[in-house]
Amino acid sequence: MSNTFGRLLRLTSWGESHGPAIGGVLDGCPAGIALAEADMQKDLDRRRPGQSAITTQRKEPDAVQILSGVFRGKTTGAPVAFLIENRDKNSSHYDAIKDIWRPGHSDYTLDAKYGLRDWRGGGRSSARETAVRVAAGAVAKKILKNVAITGYTAQVGDIAMKRFSATQIEKNPVRCPDAAAAEKMRRLIEKVRKAGDSVGGMVEVTAQNVPPGLGVPVYAKLNADLAGAMMGINAVKGVEIGSGFACASMRGSRHNDQMRALRGKLVFKTNHAGGILGGISNGNDIVVRIAVKPTPSILKPQEAVDKKMKNVGLRVIGRHDPCLCPRVVPVAEAMMALVLADHLLLHRGSRI
Amino acid sequence: MSNTFGRLLRLTSWGESHGPAIGGVLDGCPAGIALAEADMQKDLDRRRPGQSAITTQRKEPDAVQILSGVFRGKTTGAPVAFLIENRDKNSSHYDAIKDIWRPGHSDYTLDAKYGLRDWRGGGRSSARETAVRVAAGAVAKKILKNVAITGYTAQVGDIAMKRFSATQIEKNPVRCPDAAAAEKMRRLIEKVRKAGDSVGGMVEVTAQNVPPGLGVPVYAKLNADLAGAMMGINAVKGVEIGSGFACASMRGSRHNDQMRALRGKLVFKTNHAGGILGGISNGNDIVVRIAVKPTPSILKPQEAVDKKMKNVGLRVIGRHDPCLCPRVVPVAEAMMALVLADHLLLHRGSRI
Amino acid sequence: MSNTFGRLLRLTSWGESHGPAIGGVLDGCPAGIALAEADMQKDLDRRRPGQSAITTQRKEPDAVQILSGVFRGKTTGAPVAFLIENRDKNSSHYDAIKDIWRPGHSDYTLDAKYGLRDWRGGGRSSARETAVRVAAGAVAKKILKNVAITGYTAQVGDIAMKRFSATQIEKNPVRCPDAAAAEKMRRLIEKVRKAGDSVGGMVEVTAQNVPPGLGVPVYAKLNADLAGAMMGINAVKGVEIGSGFACASMRGSRHNDQMRALRGKLVFKTNHAGGILGGISNGNDIVVRIAVKPTPSILKPQEAVDKKMKNVGLRVIGRHDPCLCPRVVPVAEAMMALVLADHLLLHRGSRI
Amino acid sequence: MSNTFGRLLRLTSWGESHGPAIGGVLDGCPAGIALAEADMQKDLDRRRPGQSAITTQRKEPDAVQILSGVFRGKTTGAPVAFLIENRDKNSSHYDAIKDIWRPGHSDYTLDAKYGLRDWRGGGRSSARETAVRVAAGAVAKKILKNVAITGYTAQVGDIAMKRFSATQIEKNPVRCPDAAAAEKMRRLIEKVRKAGDSVGGMVEVTAQNVPPGLGVPVYAKLNADLAGAMMGINAVKGVEIGSGFACASMRGSRHNDQMRALRGKLVFKTNHAGGILGGISNGNDIVVRIAVKPTPSILKPQEAVDKKMKNVGLRVIGRHDPCLCPRVVPVAEAMMALVLADHLLLHRGSRI
Repeated sequence: MSNTFGRLLRLTSWGESHGPAIGGVLDGCPAGIALAEADMQKDLDRRRPGQSAITTQRKEPDAVQILSGVFRGKTTGAPVAFLIENRDKNSSHYDAIKDIWRPGHSDYTLDAKYGLRDWRGGGRSSARETAVRVAAGAVAKKILKNVAITGYTAQVGDIAMKRFSATQIEKNPVRCPDAAAAEKMRRLIEKVRKAGDSVGGMVEVTAQNVPPGLGVPVYAKLNADLAGAMMGINAVKGVEIGSGFACASMRGSRHNDQMRALRGKLVFKTNHAGGILGGISNGNDIVVRIAVKPTPSILKPQEAVDKKMKNVGLRVIGRHDPCLCPRVVPVAEAMMALVLADHLLLHRGSRI
Repeated sequence: MSNTFGRLLRLTSWGESHGPAIGGVLDGCPAGIALAEADMQKDLDRRRPGQSAITTQRKEPDAVQILSGVFRGKTTGAPVAFLIENRDKNSSHYDAIKDIWRPGHSDYTLDAKYGLRDWRGGGRSSARETAVRVAAGAVAKKILKNVAITGYTAQVGDIAMKRFSATQIEKNPVRCPDAAAAEKMRRLIEKVRKAGDSVGGMVEVTAQNVPPGLGVPVYAKLNADLAGAMMGINAVKGVEIGSGFACASMRGSRHNDQMRALRGKLVFKTNHAGGILGGISNGNDIVVRIAVKPTPSILKPQEAVDKKMKNVGLRVIGRHDPCLCPRVVPVAEAMMALVLADHLLLHRGSRI
Repeated sequence: MSNTFGRLLRLTSWGESHGPAIGGVLDGCPAGIALAEADMQKDLDRRRPGQSAITTQRKEPDAVQILSGVFRGKTTGAPVAFLIENRDKNSSHYDAIKDIWRPGHSDYTLDAKYGLRDWRGGGRSSARETAVRVAAGAVAKKILKNVAITGYTAQVGDIAMKRFSATQIEKNPVRCPDAAAAEKMRRLIEKVRKAGDSVGGMVEVTAQNVPPGLGVPVYAKLNADLAGAMMGINAVKGVEIGSGFACASMRGSRHNDQMRALRGKLVFKTNHAGGILGGISNGNDIVVRIAVKPTPSILKPQEAVDKKMKNVGLRVIGRHDPCLCPRVVPVAEAMMALVLADHLLLHRGSRI
Repeated sequence: MSNTFGRLLRLTSWGESHGPAIGGVLDGCPAGIALAEADMQKDLDRRRPGQSAITTQRKEPDAVQILSGVFRGKTTGAPVAFLIENRDKNSSHYDAIKDIWRPGHSDYTLDAKYGLRDWRGGGRSSARETAVRVAAGAVAKKILKNVAITGYTAQVGDIAMKRFSATQIEKNPVRCPDAAAAEKMRRLIEKVRKAGDSVGGMVEVTAQNVPPGLGVPVYAKLNADLAGAMMGINAVKGVEIGSGFACASMRGSRHNDQMRALRGKLVFKTNHAGGILGGISNGNDIVVRIAVKPTPSILKPQEAVDKKMKNVGLRVIGRHDPCLCPRVVPVAEAMMALVLADHLLLHRGSRI
């Protein structure tokens, strides 16, 4: 239940940061999709550690193997299982802090829940698990066919993007569509890293060409499922769709997206809805923004408590991302893809 | 699937705004809880239309009847079914606009999904459905025992609360814990209403005395479930937990809630986590904030399109809330209660 | 979870035998189906108590009201809620035995589970709940269009049907397709009733014109779902499909249904498979047989135990069916319809 | 959805007969259980091919590897993923029949569903998948602690066991608790094998020391879940609990298990209920019997049809079990364990 995501298209994920491997099982995948490991690898490489100077230097090839569900290059309708080995798992860093609950981490809460935990690299709580989502998201993107999902870093610290150029996104290590802002962000991240600190940011994901009609009016709304999916990404503290928090100070007369019929097509003059009305897609671009907290693993000294309820000083060592945004981008895209593909399949049951 | 909310404690909701009734079935409710209709009615009265000058004047007593699952004043473990009649359902307003897709409403998206829709008062998409959530939430609150859930309006338009006094909340029609701000909000809502317009706002919900250990590290995280629950409330465009979007410009050294052991108890010096670390409650207050868009039903003229893809002018008449926040407050509390009670029950399976 | 049946087409049921009403919510029902209460009533009348001399004389009109999900005669995709009032609920019979655990009943097990129970007429365990299934099954039949589902009594006590005439089924109170056997069965039931006893039997349900391809190879197999659905009917102790238990003494060379292509159509020479191969329908008739235990409510004296763990003698009074089969027939049909309709909808997701 | 089994304790299975591996993910497993691969291996060895002269000679060590969810010998509450490599996978046998639909197999139904299939050794429909269930069942047995689950072959062809000696079961290759009957069964299987044919049988599984209170009164009944679980095992055509089909010819006065309080304990004089009343365990032994069809893979010539709808003769070669019962025994035990452990966890939510 808890490690499965989705309704009809269901991803079950497993694995810990420092175990032998992590992996997933994608069930409910329709038969007949051309699928190869390369489809997954492309996005995995965008999430991979060590891809630039501003990401963690853990060295993981993150090479994915598909173990089932594909026969002669096509999905068969059987569950697609895949596995990624953990190679560069030096757990010795963690021995020293195995009894300490680190601030900003789930150490304490895991102990409170389960009475024990795999302390090596965050165990199950490690963001390493998001590689599984990215691999599955690549399959979801194939189900979505013409839907174009684009994620990027919109803000790092106080530096926000000012302009949008899609071609810029993958050209800078921050994955920001504004080259000038990207360079400022990169320098800020470098500065923060050298200070042994970390910094937060914002990631935006859009989906274009989403057919109208995906979602439902109550509970399993498209926006509700997207919010759950995005808030479930490690380190995310906020989610907004369309106008988001800005709607609080708006009037209805401005917020309502006025509609026009243009050559037989429905057009919205604005997109405060962010592509979703009453829980159902309206054909407009879906626009989701998420707030990413600064990496909790920092080199600065901190105040922690250990399992014996003793106050301790803590100075974490290890290899960490000074800003999570660049690597959150492909994860957020994957979650968007998984939700949309799930609702595309669910939609097939909506009419007799 | 889509009209059921929750994992172990599951609310299935039904009913349209202008049908004979709305209702719900709460399954998975443990046996032995003292429960009466009055428990539900108390919160329903806080959500009821017509409760003040700044809410819609639709007159609904919203009297709930429990139809099953309670025997001699106690829950039996059987599903708790309840029903609320629709009394003041004048559908004639809607006849004129039955073929028109209203801006900001789900008219178009429902048609796109199902090929037809109950046009009377929004049908299934009506916020009237949230009464079902409030009734079920009252049961969830009983399951939660000592957990105290408090919702209030934190902002209306540009007016934000400045101070917090719990006793003020239910003393003003806005449900704002800051009496001075509440009065300004009330006046703004009045002004907006007279202008035939509406205004957005922000609602905050907190939960105190939540035991640590609720939630899981992946997918069914407590924060993910809360985000889905809140974003699924009609008109909500954003959700944040703890530091929320403010985290984007923070450093890790500031964001990490430093920990201390104080007389054998774990204490966090700050609460940027909003009570949840790694998807699991940490014992601190859970703090969730949601952005509520301005009511889409406004009296001002608008640009709409009809089912024949013709451009039409639209001037809605009817009875609507000029600001949704005061009535969203009990709904957001209910969703918080449903999620927490569900996770409290799920938590029982976490250890051998 | 426990009171919801189905995967995409989901029936949530509620209500106790002697509460104000019983009812259900059918979610996942596609939009556009012509539906009226009369569609449900037809099958409800076949399940109704008091319909013949050999059924219980409790007098319930079992008149169903649809409360949501239908607009202008068509389903809207919203949940279809319906309600059946309990009229003839004389609970006084039960006061005397409220602390006694009756043999063959769930009195003891309900107490063991929940620590309390609604003792009036079996409460939630009453077969009265099956009316909800019958009402929902009527909707499922409409989703199934050309699929013809036929249920009948195949055996009562030692009397088994010898021949099959579909037109006979509804002509006798036993619902047996063999007129001669039906008369013998009727007399046996009468005899048993007069003796204050009850008798078991067998019910068979078939589905014709089921398209091949419904079901899946693992877990959510069509046969597995049918077995769960049938065994979940009150009083059922066994389920078999196709050859059923007879397969134990057969050789593979005889059991394998040999196949032929006949004018471009696939034909099976026999139907030991009962229409299902590897969990998936093969286009042949689906044939399910269930064993129905004798009604546990008998007038003969019995040995029971009470809540204080004291041995007591028990003589139940009340109005009971001496043989459940005639009224199980429409229930078994409904469960078959619910499972098949669910799989028909699920099948829509099987290919890209 | 389809490849996941269970409600709170959930097994997701993946893999094809001739792919690189098969495996599973067991989610919802409580933390703190001592678990090692040896726990799984013990039961896997009982299911393994090639274990005796009367099972298929495919040579698979079926060595299981646990990949996650266990840390320092204990479960952590994270999903337990495990993998079994396919070693002896000679697919060349299947090339010749890749376009032919074999009688008694799912070849045709898979094509009807998905439009394509992995034809090597049955692909996803292969009984090889049941190894995954056995591995997961071993964990379920640990959750069940004192519950003793015992499976055995009760009948092969027309030869039924006459007496029960628990110690005999694992002493003969048929897994029959009656040594004399076992020898007759073995000889029958040998004879059938030499004739290039196969034979059906019956398997019985019991669970002792099951606490009363597991299950629910409606839908997710313990008997319904058991029936679905058992019917979902490859080749099973019938399931009965307690009196099973024999109940059809019984009177209520005989079928009702009379109750006595004996030294403060509730005792049932008979066990026609098979340990379950009204969907809930009553503390008595749970007794389930299943009918296993003869292996569809036989060497005798058969009439089949190919994908071009042409009639073809078929003579299968390969290595097959002449009687499935001995290897079904541990699978049926595993399914019983999975259902009971799931309900044990679900039961924790039944009271406030």
